[in-house]
Amino acid sequence: MNNFVFHTPTKILFGKGQVESLGKEVAPIAKKVLLAYGSGSVKKIGLYDKTVSILKENGIEFVELSGIEPNPKLESVVEGVKLCRENKLQAIVAIGGGSVIDCSKAISAAIGYDGNPWDLLLDGSLITSAIPIFTVLTLSATGTEMNGNAVISNMQTNEKKALKSPLVKPVCSVLDPEYTCTVSPWQIASGTADIISHIFEVYFSLVEGAKVTDGISETLLKVCIEYGEKAYNNPDDYEARANLMWASSLAINGLTAAGKGGEPWSCHAMEHQLSAYYDITHGAGLATVTPSWFRFILSDKTVGKFVSYGVNVWGIDPSLDPFEIANKAIEKTEEFFFDVLKLPRTLKDYGIDETHLADMAEKAAMEGLDKAIIPLTAEDVLKIYKDCLE
Amino acid sequence: MNNFVFHTPTKILFGKGQVESLGKEVAPIAKKVLLAYGSGSVKKIGLYDKTVSILKENGIEFVELSGIEPNPKLESVVEGVKLCRENKLQAIVAIGGGSVIDCSKAISAAIGYDGNPWDLLLDGSLITSAIPIFTVLTLSATGTEMNGNAVISNMQTNEKKALKSPLVKPVCSVLDPEYTCTVSPWQIASGTADIISHIFEVYFSLVEGAKVTDGISETLLKVCIEYGEKAYNNPDDYEARANLMWASSLAINGLTAAGKGGEPWSCHAMEHQLSAYYDITHGAGLATVTPSWFRFILSDKTVGKFVSYGVNVWGIDPSLDPFEIANKAIEKTEEFFFDVLKLPRTLKDYGIDETHLADMAEKAAMEGLDKAIIPLTAEDVLKIYKDCLE
Repeated sequence: MNNFVFHTPTKILFGKGQVESLGKEVAPIAKKVLLAYGSGSVKKIGLYDKTVSILKENGIEFVELSGIEPNPKLESVVEGVKLCRENKLQAIVAIGGGSVIDCSKAISAAIGYDGNPWDLLLDGSLITSAIPIFTVLTLSATGTEMNGNAVISNMQTNEKKALKSPLVKPVCSVLDPEYTCTVSPWQIASGTADIISHIFEVYFSLVEGAKVTDGISETLLKVCIEYGEKAYNNPDDYEARANLMWASSLAINGLTAAGKGGEPWSCHAMEHQLSAYYDITHGAGLATVTPSWFRFILSDKTVGKFVSYGVNVWGIDPSLDPFEIANKAIEKTEEFFFDVLKLPRTLKDYGIDETHLADMAEKAAMEGLDKAIIPLTAEDVLKIYKDCLE
Repeated sequence: MNNFVFHTPTKILFGKGQVESLGKEVAPIAKKVLLAYGSGSVKKIGLYDKTVSILKENGIEFVELSGIEPNPKLESVVEGVKLCRENKLQAIVAIGGGSVIDCSKAISAAIGYDGNPWDLLLDGSLITSAIPIFTVLTLSATGTEMNGNAVISNMQTNEKKALKSPLVKPVCSVLDPEYTCTVSPWQIASGTADIISHIFEVYFSLVEGAKVTDGISETLLKVCIEYGEKAYNNPDDYEARANLMWASSLAINGLTAAGKGGEPWSCHAMEHQLSAYYDITHGAGLATVTPSWFRFILSDKTVGKFVSYGVNVWGIDPSLDPFEIANKAIEKTEEFFFDVLKLPRTLKDYGIDETHLADMAEKAAMEGLDKAIIPLTAEDVLKIYKDCLE
């Protein structure tokens, strides 16, 4: 068990109608905020109107930044920084999914930085201040509502990078599962794959003895499997939405990494190249990459972790041969991603061919994958990409 | 699944040697602190000298409050408040177990309150300010290092009450399992029973559908059972100490209550009377009370929770009759507390007879037990006390 630092200062208001408390949280901290959101979906579900009326009731002025796109782009960050500076905004209220929140975090950190905000994604130590962030989450996936990470895309350089700073952890996040009830089955499926991948990236670390952490990870994986399917098939299942939502926050707030190390993350590095080059949905890309990564890393050294996964998460008979358990566990994972959640199985399903794979593999490996839980070279990544092709 | 608020702002520095970072955490916040500790055990393990040298290296002046007793008394709180006021101290560094930290929290909250600090235990809303608290924990049990609770005893009135305020959540807690290696088997046993009881108090809530929370609780219970025994039998087992230590913090920081409600707590209310009247060790008292509480609350309504507990925590065959599973699970719990951890099974083992039981039952019931997960009257509590007699 490794040493670790665990710090989740974000106050979570979880459940039906909790947005009503948002004004009480924002008002003591800011009188003038950026209201950030994406497409019109927050208007369709009534969250936009609700937030506007709460801000008004609490005497909080706001300036809007709308149209933040999935896989948020550097351009939106630049625009948000401009609005905050021009209007001397004191905080950001982000309503939406991970993209809106990630974009808001990058804006928050870039306000006090004079250069190009992209610099902050290349070197997190440049972040020395950030304005407070409040979020109302509408999609269970990235866990950004409770951590200090944000992923931003730079389409000019075909790069997708993660910003990391404790300064951008939201002050308060409202998690009302009812706001996720209009999320499409496709988004539920890719969100669930994203949550599962956050857990996998650390769970398969070879650090031994972190039993609390491993047990929590297995619990969250079982919740994702049970409730991912339920939410996918029945959008009105509150219990399913609620458990998925809470699992998504806990899967990447430090709890599943406590004592295990695990960074840098392999599947995320590989997927970031996929969505940087082809703008595909992050969670879906992770689902496509994961089984090939599993098969690549399965060895005498890792088989014990696959046995724990297979037995404790999938209930596979522990008396079987360890490699048989491991392979069954990988098959179960594939069935879940591709048959239950109906996510695309191969890169060909996205129309992706070999064209950029070698370049992407180089870039993915450069994300520090020589220090991943199972170190990967560019050549290894290329093999994994090719294994996903069809 | 109920709505909930989850807020754990305490920064946890977990692992070997993490105390080295304490100065870095305290220095930006306070230049003059109260150094609070109990008996000489922190001197024996070198923690006192280490802390003093860290404070000096970081230019932090300190005034000492020593001799804080187990089941900390109001007198120590009063003394600490006096020291803080006289010396204009800006923060508290508490080194020790739950008692030292609880006493420090009460001091912290009472500094800004003009009346008798005991008022704050009777009415938490009187707490409107608190100075920052930093802790270095030496005993895994109460979880106080990561929450806003503190229990203080008033021996004049034979009362033991809990102070609750988000304002007293520690800013930073150092959890180094090596500092728990000199803890006696008796303290490990009662600490483990305390952790387990924190989980039980909420786990048996009849609120359905909080699967993430129930799964985490079951994980923590399994960790306590496995590593409680290991730590009890082998004080040098770092992995056992580390997992117990992390489990103790997570068992009562809100994670095992998320979506379940659960307050007020029944066994704690009953045990608080035991240690208020007889000054017995809190965790040991909980172990004595718990099986009788279990048998009292077992019914058609609760049997399903006992089945989950028996099957998921103890691995009891799920095909058995539900009440058979429940009774086996209660027996397993008794075996663990009384045979494995060798805690006293009955009140008679402590030399406690019927003398005060009726008074204690009245007082325990007045802790709001009519609103407990399974409501209890004074008469019910008396029945439970009597069942523990021998």
